[in-house]
Amino acid sequence: MMSGRRERSGAATRYAAGLRCISCREEYEVTDAGTCKECYEEASETEEELKREIEDLKAKVAFLKLASPIEHHRSYFTDLILLASDDHCLALRAHKAVLISRSPVFRAMLENEMEESRSGTIKISDVSYEVLRSFVRYLYTAEVSLDEQLACELLILAEKYQVKHLKAFCEKFMTSKVTNDNAVSSFAFAHRHNAKQLLEASLSLITDNMDTLTERDEYKELVETDPRLVVEIYEAYLAKQINTASSRDAAS
Amino acid sequence: MMSGRRERSGAATRYAAGLRCISCREEYEVTDAGTCKECYEEASETEEELKREIEDLKAKVAFLKLASPIEHHRSYFTDLILLASDDHCLALRAHKAVLISRSPVFRAMLENEMEESRSGTIKISDVSYEVLRSFVRYLYTAEVSLDEQLACELLILAEKYQVKHLKAFCEKFMTSKVTNDNAVSSFAFAHRHNAKQLLEASLSLITDNMDTLTERDEYKELVETDPRLVVEIYEAYLAKQINTASSRDAAS
Repeated sequence: MMSGRRERSGAATRYAAGLRCISCREEYEVTDAGTCKECYEEASETEEELKREIEDLKAKVAFLKLASPIEHHRSYFTDLILLASDDHCLALRAHKAVLISRSPVFRAMLENEMEESRSGTIKISDVSYEVLRSFVRYLYTAEVSLDEQLACELLILAEKYQVKHLKAFCEKFMTSKVTNDNAVSSFAFAHRHNAKQLLEASLSLITDNMDTLTERDEYKELVETDPRLVVEIYEAYLAKQINTASSRDAAS
Repeated sequence: MMSGRRERSGAATRYAAGLRCISCREEYEVTDAGTCKECYEEASETEEELKREIEDLKAKVAFLKLASPIEHHRSYFTDLILLASDDHCLALRAHKAVLISRSPVFRAMLENEMEESRSGTIKISDVSYEVLRSFVRYLYTAEVSLDEQLACELLILAEKYQVKHLKAFCEKFMTSKVTNDNAVSSFAFAHRHNAKQLLEASLSLITDNMDTLTERDEYKELVETDPRLVVEIYEAYLAKQINTASSRDAAS
């Protein structure tokens, strides 16, 4: 059974102890030792348990998802109409019960006998029909296929209607897409919409690349439109420099 | 840093290689070796990823759960009344949209302009108000606190209304509660309600304890009420004996 044996050469071979990894089945040296057998077995059991838990949770998600009236082009006993600002002819049907479950803002609108509750119609301003569709679909299914533009627009809607889960989902997506090119605009966006994770990620990237900052168009624009944010960038940069200097002193 | 060192004695000590487990930090011998460092690190990463996935899924479940009109004693724009057979005065309010999402039987009832759809009332026969409450609550939240009696009654309801997720949940619970004492009745129950996992578990326990089978009251009852099931028990027992004998022959 030597076929899987890892080839060793030179100095390393001297320490070979004939140890064989239970996981990858290859031999390794004392210096490459990982766990004892007991911990390996415990870890394997833990992994199996975690995987079972994931399967259970996935089944629960599938059970709890609601058939969205948008997806299926059926009325499904809807009792509410949503209208986007760009097209008053295309109405989206929905259920009051679902909307109040997902959003405290819709709850307040619909439970307090406001205009929306009486008319059975809610107008959602500053949003296109397509974005509103994605929004409503998410309220029913917790599913959406994001691109950067949609994430941005849905985050704004989610913030407005206090749909925390969707806001966090969009923010996570946007944070994963922060680059040097969009860091300044992401930072400004995060500021406007209280997106802490996105704010930290973009600010960190900006202060890591200060040498090119002032040449960028989005920087120049920000100086014009919101100089206080530019001040924040410089303050963060300064704090980072002081921090780095003091930890360098401590090390030397 | 010798405080955590495991005490070894006699023969085992001879093989001590000075290996220290990265996970539990204790020393171990070559014979107790588990993984190499690389595999340990991979496993740790996998575990972290799985735990993050679990957190994400739990958040999704929390988002998708619906506020149940039962829990909150509010109407929540309900459009349907459910009546248990034991008490026609206590009505449970619900939403057609939720019921058709969870059960193809409710969907057929409500979408096909049957009596239930017109009247907005569904009578659920052979079920107590308390069980119906738990059932409806599960349809909204995927949550229920089971005991053996409730699991049994909810499984029957879940089968009748084809709520697969709840049926599987109850069956899993009942399977975990099979003992020598209830194995025969569990087997008969599993047969009546097409619960394969429960059937296999109870049949396996019965055939492992054939020596006491015929003395039990539930066995005598089953011979009277459904002798075909008793035949199945004996057939399974015989098959197991033949199997054991042939694997014993193969081994010797």
